[in-house]
Amino acid sequence: MQVSPPRGMRDFLPGDKGKRERVLGLIRSAYAAHGFDEIETPVVEDFGRLHSGLGGDNEKLAFNVMKRGLDAAALQAAADADDPDALADLGLRFDLTVPLARFYATHRAALPQVFRAVQIAPVWRAERPQKGRFRQFVQCDIDIIGEPGILAEIELLTATLATLDALGLERCRIRINDRRVLFGLLESFGFDDAEHDSVLITIDKLDKVGPSGVIDELTAKGATEGAVEALSEWLHAPVKALPSGRAEEARADIARIEDALRASGVEGELVFDPFLVRGMGYYTGTIFEIEHPDFSFSLGGGGRYDGMIGRFLGEDVPACGFSIGFERIIDLIADPAADDATSLVLVHDKADDPERLLRFKRDLIARGHRVRLERRTKNLAPLLQRAQDAGFHAFALLNRSADGVDDLDIKPFEQPNGQSSPE
Amino acid sequence: MQVSPPRGMRDFLPGDKGKRERVLGLIRSAYAAHGFDEIETPVVEDFGRLHSGLGGDNEKLAFNVMKRGLDAAALQAAADADDPDALADLGLRFDLTVPLARFYATHRAALPQVFRAVQIAPVWRAERPQKGRFRQFVQCDIDIIGEPGILAEIELLTATLATLDALGLERCRIRINDRRVLFGLLESFGFDDAEHDSVLITIDKLDKVGPSGVIDELTAKGATEGAVEALSEWLHAPVKALPSGRAEEARADIARIEDALRASGVEGELVFDPFLVRGMGYYTGTIFEIEHPDFSFSLGGGGRYDGMIGRFLGEDVPACGFSIGFERIIDLIADPAADDATSLVLVHDKADDPERLLRFKRDLIARGHRVRLERRTKNLAPLLQRAQDAGFHAFALLNRSADGVDDLDIKPFEQPNGQSSPE
Repeated sequence: MQVSPPRGMRDFLPGDKGKRERVLGLIRSAYAAHGFDEIETPVVEDFGRLHSGLGGDNEKLAFNVMKRGLDAAALQAAADADDPDALADLGLRFDLTVPLARFYATHRAALPQVFRAVQIAPVWRAERPQKGRFRQFVQCDIDIIGEPGILAEIELLTATLATLDALGLERCRIRINDRRVLFGLLESFGFDDAEHDSVLITIDKLDKVGPSGVIDELTAKGATEGAVEALSEWLHAPVKALPSGRAEEARADIARIEDALRASGVEGELVFDPFLVRGMGYYTGTIFEIEHPDFSFSLGGGGRYDGMIGRFLGEDVPACGFSIGFERIIDLIADPAADDATSLVLVHDKADDPERLLRFKRDLIARGHRVRLERRTKNLAPLLQRAQDAGFHAFALLNRSADGVDDLDIKPFEQPNGQSSPE
Repeated sequence: MQVSPPRGMRDFLPGDKGKRERVLGLIRSAYAAHGFDEIETPVVEDFGRLHSGLGGDNEKLAFNVMKRGLDAAALQAAADADDPDALADLGLRFDLTVPLARFYATHRAALPQVFRAVQIAPVWRAERPQKGRFRQFVQCDIDIIGEPGILAEIELLTATLATLDALGLERCRIRINDRRVLFGLLESFGFDDAEHDSVLITIDKLDKVGPSGVIDELTAKGATEGAVEALSEWLHAPVKALPSGRAEEARADIARIEDALRASGVEGELVFDPFLVRGMGYYTGTIFEIEHPDFSFSLGGGGRYDGMIGRFLGEDVPACGFSIGFERIIDLIADPAADDATSLVLVHDKADDPERLLRFKRDLIARGHRVRLERRTKNLAPLLQRAQDAGFHAFALLNRSADGVDDLDIKPFEQPNGQSSPE
């Protein structure tokens, strides 16, 4: 019988699960210190809300939950209409932003005027499984709702950098841009409004294909000729001036964010990148991406999306969010509690009284130890090796001493005198 | 637009979410100290595994996940067969035991010979929503797999009582019985094997309807007359002797568990109850239920289920588990960190420099505070009251002092001198 977890999904064994919980604990503490409040929503949302357009392409990747008690008539109606969605009333969330928008609409009256939310929770996407991509994965989002000014951006950046620091990822660099810069530039080059989305998809590849690759692709796409030329000129200009209007305004805001970060003494570099695009269509202002000099991939990102949170409320609410890529980060960093020196394995004989064993265990726990019982095997070495591999730091053999007095000799695994691997 | 969470499910606002995470943290620590290892499985399992019979009645309550990319032919085939299940390939887990059995089959080679598992995770059941019952709720299960002897029961009981203690639920009492006692008794009274399940359903009501109620119901059911009489006699006998054979053996095991607990000095009372039934059909030996003198409902329970964990492996593996009723307990206990004295609200003016504000925030965090920024409102009292309600312990007003020197006066909310509610 096939017993692996569902396709594209993972079990976590004790070592990995422990590390994940410890790292999430650090993330929780760091965000809490910066004034963010954790919330939780159900893993499923109503089908209609998940498919309201806020989720972009991710909506197509949703796992749908079937209505309960479907009868033959309902099945026939769905078959006649060739509409499987008619059979679903719920779906697993594919991000934490749609649920946040719904949550905010439900609970607005009970929330502070400026609401700083943390969500640390799994999401599901029915993507084609591939290396490093999973169908269930944890997202760590922080969002500030209700603050229209750059204070939101600054608090998000500060909290994120402090959190990455706490995880041992110092030296992170944040690329920053603003949608207003992008659209201001496109306009100044002379692209039509209708072209913008398509042009941005190409410009997003600048890092990979370079200026000439971008120009070639735009030409092949048939983008407005003069605009492509203007872009090419700008890309090759030694000094890149931004057009006046919204692009300049946005650049000034970014400069203020840079100043505030520097003046406050927060570690971490901010780099203005006028061609940082980021995929999500819902961003309306600043956009960010986290880089680390040791890794070629992004460690997270975010941006301002003033139009979205209020959609379920029917009004605009300013909002800005930041997400760190937990599933990427967890593999890069050391286990913060790999040095839990209190853990020990208590090796006993089958013949031992449970009373005696339990008394020892209880006393060791009371003294602050984490204790696992192991029944003695003929050859002790592999048992102890497994315990050491599982992160235990010491062992104790429960032997009845000759004079009937119980005592317990705790031996650290690291001891090089041979006691660490008795026969 | 309707914006509440899906039917029977809950959002958790910051206060509740914080309390839940803190209580789960205590539970995690207590179980870890007792040698249990936390694992995690995906929230969905393959449809066939969820519906393999291990889940009993809960299988009917599963939320099913639809196959992706269903075409008209698949829909028509399901309609023709009147079989909605044909359209599902996954389902949300309805308990943590079926996933544990699957996990054990997948990873057995990587696990210790005696595996002590903790699982703390949500499960889903499409029950009719009612007060105190939810369609998504957290279960906290510990299981010992691979230990056939009473050491498993003793470790589970000890760890559970210590955990309840850590939550402030001292004075818990554990009712204990053994399926072998129940079946030994039924046999000795003269019930047919075929009657056992039905008779146990009635006996389970003994607490509520008393001996005469049980006898009446059994008579009405048409249970074997002589056996009902023998049961009635036994119920009214001043001294209740157990029949020899498996019932006596099981009683001796329970006595050894009682002795071991007493000798070890673990707090907590164990009460033998020969008519404790517990619903799940998969129990094969000891069964437990946790009671607290202040509450009329069970706080959890468990038992031995040697036949089940090995089902996906095709062999018997001894197993014993214990579950505490997290959703019930969370409402009974105080928030363990309601006294976080480090939290403060930093009240600022719209005109304040972000730099200055951020510098104060950063310094306060560095000094160990949790800091939330709040923009000053005309009337400060409601703002401060909301902060106090949200668990903050102090506030500080960011004012530019006359001589231009920044200083921050932190005022605890509890101060009775009027500073706690300035205008």
